[in-house]
Amino acid sequence: MADNIKRITKMAGKHSVQFHEPPSIISVSSIAGKKEGEGPLGSYFDVVHEDPMVGKKTWEEAESEFMKQAAEKALEKANLKNTDIRYIIGGDLLGQLIATSFGIAELQIPMFGVFGACSTMGESMILGAMLVDGGYAKKVIAITSSHFAGAEKQFRYPLDYGNQRPYSASWTVTGSGAAVIACQKDAKNQGFNTDIIIPGATVGKIVDFGIKDNMNMGAAMVPAAFDTIKQNFEDFGVKPDYYDKIITGDLGYVGSEILVDMLKEKGYDISNNHMDCGVEIYDQNEQDTHAGGSGCSCSAITFAGYVMKRLRDKEWKRVLFVPTGALLSQVSFNEGKTIPGIAHGVIVESR
Amino acid sequence: MADNIKRITKMAGKHSVQFHEPPSIISVSSIAGKKEGEGPLGSYFDVVHEDPMVGKKTWEEAESEFMKQAAEKALEKANLKNTDIRYIIGGDLLGQLIATSFGIAELQIPMFGVFGACSTMGESMILGAMLVDGGYAKKVIAITSSHFAGAEKQFRYPLDYGNQRPYSASWTVTGSGAAVIACQKDAKNQGFNTDIIIPGATVGKIVDFGIKDNMNMGAAMVPAAFDTIKQNFEDFGVKPDYYDKIITGDLGYVGSEILVDMLKEKGYDISNNHMDCGVEIYDQNEQDTHAGGSGCSCSAITFAGYVMKRLRDKEWKRVLFVPTGALLSQVSFNEGKTIPGIAHGVIVESR
Repeated sequence: MADNIKRITKMAGKHSVQFHEPPSIISVSSIAGKKEGEGPLGSYFDVVHEDPMVGKKTWEEAESEFMKQAAEKALEKANLKNTDIRYIIGGDLLGQLIATSFGIAELQIPMFGVFGACSTMGESMILGAMLVDGGYAKKVIAITSSHFAGAEKQFRYPLDYGNQRPYSASWTVTGSGAAVIACQKDAKNQGFNTDIIIPGATVGKIVDFGIKDNMNMGAAMVPAAFDTIKQNFEDFGVKPDYYDKIITGDLGYVGSEILVDMLKEKGYDISNNHMDCGVEIYDQNEQDTHAGGSGCSCSAITFAGYVMKRLRDKEWKRVLFVPTGALLSQVSFNEGKTIPGIAHGVIVESR
Repeated sequence: MADNIKRITKMAGKHSVQFHEPPSIISVSSIAGKKEGEGPLGSYFDVVHEDPMVGKKTWEEAESEFMKQAAEKALEKANLKNTDIRYIIGGDLLGQLIATSFGIAELQIPMFGVFGACSTMGESMILGAMLVDGGYAKKVIAITSSHFAGAEKQFRYPLDYGNQRPYSASWTVTGSGAAVIACQKDAKNQGFNTDIIIPGATVGKIVDFGIKDNMNMGAAMVPAAFDTIKQNFEDFGVKPDYYDKIITGDLGYVGSEILVDMLKEKGYDISNNHMDCGVEIYDQNEQDTHAGGSGCSCSAITFAGYVMKRLRDKEWKRVLFVPTGALLSQVSFNEGKTIPGIAHGVIVESR
């Protein structure tokens, strides 16, 4: 058998991969909280929950419920069953990924737990595309979640403490987003719309510029976003206008400005086609969200809700989706460590 | 280009994958703590540190240092540089994987952060093998770590509290293990010993039998180990004696007995070829380790040190390596949740 295999490289440049028969995103789901539903993108989400506890007893259980619903909605929209999915790749912000483990356990799908902080959706989509393109699965789910109250408890202060938030602080998005990534040929034969594809991706490395302020995580993640976007341009030999949109995860207002400036200095002008999910998801003036949205689900539900709609409507033909993560913990912060960043870039095209 | 590609499935049975041109493990490393060095496997580890702090100021920094050394040692033993490694896949037990992020940041290798609790080495080896076999990388590192003091602080009580440990409790292994997984053909051409290969793997799903005692994690993980091992037999159509050893991660004395009984009930007798890393790594009577060793590095350094030696010496021809993980957190435990388990199975052969 082994002799018949034509082994081809799918490596592009230094850190990127290209898929020769790109996997398709055949279904997405976005389950959002109340505040997200009231924001500018509210109408794009599949479900908006008025109750941040969704009937559960703890913030953690609530986040798990958001994730469970995201997985189920992504399946339902494609008329799929859990047994149609070979692997699920997911993670969240909570220590030891408990939102994910307790959220998806019932589905009984073999699982790869991943952690990239708020870059998790990028990481899980890249691995998902590799697993499908590599022949290890026909369909996988990439999923992530975050919850405002759970994240505040985990990383900052209990809500009851009522601390003041500086303007550089971001607001963790409550919600969960999922994507079903499928073998294009196979899905086409089954009648799925396979127009949205993942032709390539750039895997991020850890970048640490020494920032220590957990109330300014946008700035902490900028160097990682810069590194991944620049690497993407180099690895594929393209310029910023190759993409209709370059979509970062949760740099917010503060971070986005720095990113545009940093890339301009290197000769890449993304000022006309850059968009940040953290900036788009809330109305800064009306919603008192300061630097913008953050959290794993910030980029995940913005992608699954808003970005996918633009792609499906062919308003955008090709985007570079770059969720950004801040690799800190409560412990590392309390011990005075820096906040390293990571960003993963996923190319998504509409054909 | 796309037309020339012969697309083959690498799916085996329900949850498994098989590699038609299996990746090789060309280098491994094991950095161990003092207690591990004094145990029965002490002579198999590359480095044994007398100082559990390895000169650092915090337990977390110490664990990062163990991981950094494991990555460097795996590279050094194969005469490789960090730039020879396309991706690093790793994780640890600490919230938000800080041992990993701070441990490998300096290496500047694009990274996939993963979490499978103490099954992490299995997860990272499976993903690593997929990335290599899929054509996305020529060489990757799979890595994980754990630290007794950091884990006690994270999951149980501060050491200074001096709590009593029941006999069902395990002892978290201090150390870090790494493996360089490479494209076999490519590595052979470069003169590497490619005799140790990964021909297939079984991805685990979350199994939750409702156990809530964090002082008896072996028992909590048994159902997951049972599920993955049974699935492996079914997916590949083999019997227990297909493997010279079936090596679980850290079920310990309590869990191992239950596992053998559970499989026997289903008609699979593994009593003659089962081995548990948690049982082997310490001398239960001399070292006061109760149920045995645990932690991500328990299976990782036992594999990298002891198991790889047996395979290289051809004493064992084929093993099923099944690291086991308990998917709890301090928060989920305090909130009275169960302890779900997961186990990933990696087939490793010596040719």
